[in-house]
Amino acid sequence: MTTRILGIDPGLATLGFGVIDTPAQEAESGVKVIDFGVISTPAKTPVGERLCTIYDDLHSLIDQFQPDQVVIEKFFFYRMGNTILVAQARGVVMLVLAQYQLPLTEFTPAQVKQALTGYGKADKAEVQQAVAHELNLDQIPRPDDAADALALALTAWFQR
Amino acid sequence: MTTRILGIDPGLATLGFGVIDTPAQEAESGVKVIDFGVISTPAKTPVGERLCTIYDDLHSLIDQFQPDQVVIEKFFFYRMGNTILVAQARGVVMLVLAQYQLPLTEFTPAQVKQALTGYGKADKAEVQQAVAHELNLDQIPRPDDAADALALALTAWFQR
Repeated sequence: MTTRILGIDPGLATLGFGVIDTPAQEAESGVKVIDFGVISTPAKTPVGERLCTIYDDLHSLIDQFQPDQVVIEKFFFYRMGNTILVAQARGVVMLVLAQYQLPLTEFTPAQVKQALTGYGKADKAEVQQAVAHELNLDQIPRPDDAADALALALTAWFQR
Repeated sequence: MTTRILGIDPGLATLGFGVIDTPAQEAESGVKVIDFGVISTPAKTPVGERLCTIYDDLHSLIDQFQPDQVVIEKFFFYRMGNTILVAQARGVVMLVLAQYQLPLTEFTPAQVKQALTGYGKADKAEVQQAVAHELNLDQIPRPDDAADALALALTAWFQR
């Protein structure tokens, strides 16, 4: 029996997501990528409308993929202006996950780097290459936020 | 024709609300308080569940009072730990208001103080007394977050 993990990299302008299926026994077969991408909202639209888009699209995403577990990035501080916008978007993400009563795991960026590369201060490119390698992808998943979301999902798998 | 204004003081532990009816012409009759209070969520409950409570209760509040206009406090920084929690709750508030397509106004605390007392650095007690006076209340509305929400609603009225 596989476990489906949804990784989410929260943001207001761009929310990355990545869906993977993980085998019950590591021996049996590898982890499989199901889908990845982003929910984008235009900068000039009022914040409330952008949060509605995230709310609706995230509902659709969960209805479509029916994940067993969700992983999001633990909050850390960006530049100040962004922090509030990201935190507001993150509030909507947390709301939707709670509406579905989905088990939620949070990892810091350092935990993700450590899990994927064995080194907590690895750079973005190293993490992305590890994501592509683990998922047998010919190319680095794009955009970056989708790759970050897949990295979060893989971290949950590695930690089991 | 009266305009019904809902004031909201966003927070995760306590969200204050206040509903007032304002006359079309200032001469005609005074402003009337309709209701005020708080939506509270317990600190030990997971954040997602608390955001669900805010989402559901705010929907009920808007369904019940059918405001024409909503006023919330413009975001400003609290202590850092709180900022993220308040911003996440504020994201859910902004979402719900957008779902109802309600006209939204934001004021800073200084704008509220200025409007109610004529002095942008007035203290809490002065603002609360102005709220009680304007609304012909015998007592200061409690708790504080409800009084703050009424002050926000009154500020919108004064600025018209």
